[in-house]
Amino acid sequence: MIQNVTIIGIGLIGGSFALALKEKNIAKNIIGVDNNEENIEKAKTLGLINEALTLEEAIQKSNLIFVAIPVDATISVMAKIMPLITKNQIVVDAGSTKFDLCKMVKQYKNGNRFVATHPMWGTEHSGPQAAVNGAFEGKACVICNKENSAKDALETIENIYKKLGMHLVYMNAEAHDVHAAYISHISHITSFALANTVLQKEKEDDAIFELASGGFESTVRLAKSNAAMWVPIFKQNKENVLDVLNEHIVQLRKFKSCLEKENYEYLYELIDDANKIKRIIK
Amino acid sequence: MIQNVTIIGIGLIGGSFALALKEKNIAKNIIGVDNNEENIEKAKTLGLINEALTLEEAIQKSNLIFVAIPVDATISVMAKIMPLITKNQIVVDAGSTKFDLCKMVKQYKNGNRFVATHPMWGTEHSGPQAAVNGAFEGKACVICNKENSAKDALETIENIYKKLGMHLVYMNAEAHDVHAAYISHISHITSFALANTVLQKEKEDDAIFELASGGFESTVRLAKSNAAMWVPIFKQNKENVLDVLNEHIVQLRKFKSCLEKENYEYLYELIDDANKIKRIIK
Repeated sequence: MIQNVTIIGIGLIGGSFALALKEKNIAKNIIGVDNNEENIEKAKTLGLINEALTLEEAIQKSNLIFVAIPVDATISVMAKIMPLITKNQIVVDAGSTKFDLCKMVKQYKNGNRFVATHPMWGTEHSGPQAAVNGAFEGKACVICNKENSAKDALETIENIYKKLGMHLVYMNAEAHDVHAAYISHISHITSFALANTVLQKEKEDDAIFELASGGFESTVRLAKSNAAMWVPIFKQNKENVLDVLNEHIVQLRKFKSCLEKENYEYLYELIDDANKIKRIIK
Repeated sequence: MIQNVTIIGIGLIGGSFALALKEKNIAKNIIGVDNNEENIEKAKTLGLINEALTLEEAIQKSNLIFVAIPVDATISVMAKIMPLITKNQIVVDAGSTKFDLCKMVKQYKNGNRFVATHPMWGTEHSGPQAAVNGAFEGKACVICNKENSAKDALETIENIYKKLGMHLVYMNAEAHDVHAAYISHISHITSFALANTVLQKEKEDDAIFELASGGFESTVRLAKSNAAMWVPIFKQNKENVLDVLNEHIVQLRKFKSCLEKENYEYLYELIDDANKIKRIIK
């Protein structure tokens, strides 16, 4: 059992992590740090945290610091955290991009107290009230550049995620960011763009959403995700996201061309190809 | 209670409709017609139908005929059904496109025995084993060109769908096909294209799917839908689907341009705009 765990950013991920730490008896005292006073109050009311402290107070008191804020803020907060960290403390993040962060943390004297992780879970909601029990159960957690982390720090974090029911996947930060672009970032862009496509049409036609059915809801669900989280991700992972977005537009153009040329045989093939996704998702 | 109902195409929609008719005590005897002998056997085993007949036998015996097959097959089967229909029978379809079908049926002497409907429910699965209890509950059902249907036929169908828990939406066939392109057909194209984008990458990189998370699954779920159903839909609704697809590519290009020009303020705006979808889907 860890005595004091600080969670920086007590929203969807931080809040769900707090719930999991309590449920699995991993942490005794959970300290919340959040710029947003309202979030702190909600987190207390919801029982996510035991106390709230300033960043400096929290770092001094904590054995483990978990950072779950937008990826641009992570970079600047980490610049405050890392110089204060001793060899007995561990810092871990949960961000959706890893390359810039790992490069930056490596420069610090006690940089090996940091473990770079990406628990692959999230919803389109945000804030402490979005926190969910058992959120990470059965999901993948990526650990990046593990050779840069101290052995004991890495093992502690591995054990926590395992207790949460996650299976661990190891890769370097660069590979992570490429994969995340394909598996997560592009899905968000297509959802945002699809929402905008339909909302554009709605301006001239009120009735359009009367027909919205399950298929529409599932493809457009992620479009409810917030800009404050996603703009920094797209910014940090710009090159990879652009590569995938270009490829995606190429794939969409194939459908367009089939229709324009009335080449239904090739359209059939494209759909058959897409069906191969069954192999991967249940 | 209706004595004899024929279901042509005893798959996902036809099978779920059969289950609903039985559950709500709407039909006494359900007759299955399907080209696929295996589907007929499964439908019998699953208790979806009471008996199987040929198309001609089934039409002669039935008070109500429900057509739930791919939209191209609907056109050709309807050409066999309509000349045989008497003034005491009712024909209804469940297809995803309506314009061509309504135009075609109108030419028949007893064309007013046909009611054009589109129950807005489906999954990415197919076949009788995909049939689901309570599938239509709480969903919308579009009824097209109701002025072309006989009053008693229309009322019978309205009552059935209401008993199934559906709310009815009325529009002309042309408007339906435009709306369906926005709300359903484009979602399928983006899912197919997204699946192909990622599967393309996977060829060089096995590990990519280890990270697949909930967001990816929900945007790509529809990519499991089968070509035999969807190619005819895209074909019949080609002009509308192309319009929406072009608009969608324009929207995606805005995201691309934001990233290329590092215009993160505008990217923020685009995402904020997309968030307005919250108004429409829960």
